[in-house]
Amino acid sequence: MNKSRLEAFSDGVLAIIITIMVLELRIPEGHEWSDVQVLWPKFLSYAISFMYVGIYWNNHHHLMHTVKKVNGGVLWANLHLLFWLSLFPFVSGWAGESHFAANPMTSYGFVALMCGLAYTILVAAIVKADPENHLLQEATGGTGDRKGILSVIAYIFATAAPFLGQGGVLLSGLLLIAVALMWLIPDPRIERILQQTEVQRRG
Amino acid sequence: MNKSRLEAFSDGVLAIIITIMVLELRIPEGHEWSDVQVLWPKFLSYAISFMYVGIYWNNHHHLMHTVKKVNGGVLWANLHLLFWLSLFPFVSGWAGESHFAANPMTSYGFVALMCGLAYTILVAAIVKADPENHLLQEATGGTGDRKGILSVIAYIFATAAPFLGQGGVLLSGLLLIAVALMWLIPDPRIERILQQTEVQRRG
Amino acid sequence: MNKSRLEAFSDGVLAIIITIMVLELRIPEGHEWSDVQVLWPKFLSYAISFMYVGIYWNNHHHLMHTVKKVNGGVLWANLHLLFWLSLFPFVSGWAGESHFAANPMTSYGFVALMCGLAYTILVAAIVKADPENHLLQEATGGTGDRKGILSVIAYIFATAAPFLGQGGVLLSGLLLIAVALMWLIPDPRIERILQQTEVQRRG
Amino acid sequence: MNKSRLEAFSDGVLAIIITIMVLELRIPEGHEWSDVQVLWPKFLSYAISFMYVGIYWNNHHHLMHTVKKVNGGVLWANLHLLFWLSLFPFVSGWAGESHFAANPMTSYGFVALMCGLAYTILVAAIVKADPENHLLQEATGGTGDRKGILSVIAYIFATAAPFLGQGGVLLSGLLLIAVALMWLIPDPRIERILQQTEVQRRG
Repeated sequence: MNKSRLEAFSDGVLAIIITIMVLELRIPEGHEWSDVQVLWPKFLSYAISFMYVGIYWNNHHHLMHTVKKVNGGVLWANLHLLFWLSLFPFVSGWAGESHFAANPMTSYGFVALMCGLAYTILVAAIVKADPENHLLQEATGGTGDRKGILSVIAYIFATAAPFLGQGGVLLSGLLLIAVALMWLIPDPRIERILQQTEVQRRG
Repeated sequence: MNKSRLEAFSDGVLAIIITIMVLELRIPEGHEWSDVQVLWPKFLSYAISFMYVGIYWNNHHHLMHTVKKVNGGVLWANLHLLFWLSLFPFVSGWAGESHFAANPMTSYGFVALMCGLAYTILVAAIVKADPENHLLQEATGGTGDRKGILSVIAYIFATAAPFLGQGGVLLSGLLLIAVALMWLIPDPRIERILQQTEVQRRG
Repeated sequence: MNKSRLEAFSDGVLAIIITIMVLELRIPEGHEWSDVQVLWPKFLSYAISFMYVGIYWNNHHHLMHTVKKVNGGVLWANLHLLFWLSLFPFVSGWAGESHFAANPMTSYGFVALMCGLAYTILVAAIVKADPENHLLQEATGGTGDRKGILSVIAYIFATAAPFLGQGGVLLSGLLLIAVALMWLIPDPRIERILQQTEVQRRG
Repeated sequence: MNKSRLEAFSDGVLAIIITIMVLELRIPEGHEWSDVQVLWPKFLSYAISFMYVGIYWNNHHHLMHTVKKVNGGVLWANLHLLFWLSLFPFVSGWAGESHFAANPMTSYGFVALMCGLAYTILVAAIVKADPENHLLQEATGGTGDRKGILSVIAYIFATAAPFLGQGGVLLSGLLLIAVALMWLIPDPRIERILQQTEVQRRG
């Protein structure tokens, strides 16, 4: 089976998800700065969600690069991931609209968590479809894998924290931003630490 | 004629159909769980429609894989299929919005039926365009074909059942979910039964 | 310059234009058939516009097939065509919303006319960019060319007719449907007549 | 890393940005010409923004044509550019909705400025990823580079001018149109002047 249409379809869906989120930024009726200032939570939510979808596209891009065989399981695991990613516009809009209230933040954390799990399932389905592909083993193990586990743990806390009140909501938001930055910025220190642990584990 | 642009355009339209359905999930004004709970019929409707469009993309992907020749008839049969698929966001939204009332369910069943028929027409147009392609005959006959016929019969019942009252609406919904699952889950038992009948018919 | 990205971008824009038109079919609040019946002008308008955009995609597909050289002029002529096509959702929605009132019909005819002219300009830009391409001359002249001229004349009448009152509006609608069918149905009789005239003109 | 998916994703996002802007042209409730006439600022804003996004697609197309190596930095610089471009529908709609009031014009100029800077960053990231690529040096330096610098200066003035009152707003609008035309029309005189200065600088 051909992986190029899987990439093309995923690119299409991700491109639409990342772009329709901007439709949640409703055009204000007035034309004063104050009319736009009230939109700041939506802008912030949009920017963070844009980063998230961008990170998924980026990782998906890297992951597919090493894939050689695609089967039915991989197609469905990919659609499952796209389903959860497609809920980002909803939870992103709700979080912004509600000025980051507790329940919307929990929802955002939950969708981020499900995306993280769906990505893990996709990786597993890909590895299962082509167990001999050493390049793939390399690419999906190691640092990327550890970042993935760290992210899922952070998402669980981000989902649960808002139940603890206003401080929990703030923690949830900080965790979600921290995960985005962890994937975004290739921080040499973090990379080094992760690599050292890697070396120790392997050695 | 080149099939790659047909695939690219179909991928684009399917990616948009599957993604804009999420826009029907209007962001609630409040930020209580109760504000989201009222959206459950829309979520359910969205998830099922996402599966449906995903199944069509999946089958379209497989079908096109074996195609070698594309002519004007195939292009129009493909656009005809895309037209009916493009009505999924409408009937899906209406079914969810109305909490699965009878008429919206009939509409949903009808659109599913027309998509099923349009797909059958597309397959026929493809076979007619390239009658010598044995790989195609193989791919479009057999199990896939039987699943297709079963689906169309189920869609006819799903369209008619809601006229029988509340029980009929439920039956309609269950039929639509059952068809989705039949395509989604490669149930070994169903596969075996279908293959056996296949063998008997051929033998 | 590479024509594949021009095709990809055009496919993307056309796929979005053809699909977002369905968003104009607002989901009714009630769940009676009468709630949907009032939408019939919008459905009709959607179906015809879907055909129009589909025809443009189809013709664009054929045209690009023969193209070998793409330059800046071709890129801009293509964007110019996409601009006018992007107004279809607006005029289509207005025509349906107003139950085919005179002014919306004139607007629809005008956008159809501008698309027809923009397509002619694109063909001219392509021929100018590669005057040695005989395959292209063949593909853009002859029957297709005559259909194009007939269409533009019909669009002019479709734009002007609604000013004559209710009968003119009807004429406008019939002309627009007739043009769509002329491109859609490869009527052997019309084809034969056009080919004969062609032969006489060439002979 | 493969540049084709970067192009495909960018094409997808740009195609969506350029097309969803038409959704801001809300269908009027009445069917008189006066109902459409009030939309002229939105039409004008849409046409100019369509040109802007088209120019970016065009330049992106040319830029990517010469690229051979793509790394993580290029991917993120590209997403950063897409982020700012994705705000065009918002500022374009606001500018049109407010009949080109001062603050919306400043916002439009600011987004145009950020897009210009993001494009410059993308070019720098591409050059850094492949410093040996002479074709790239050629393509990103010279006339294109100067047009880029002129554009950024014009954007700064377009952002600042609306603070000076109604005349400033007009100046801002004219500057934004002038920049679009500078990229759109390959004015031989401007080209010649720019080339001469280029020759003098190099000679």
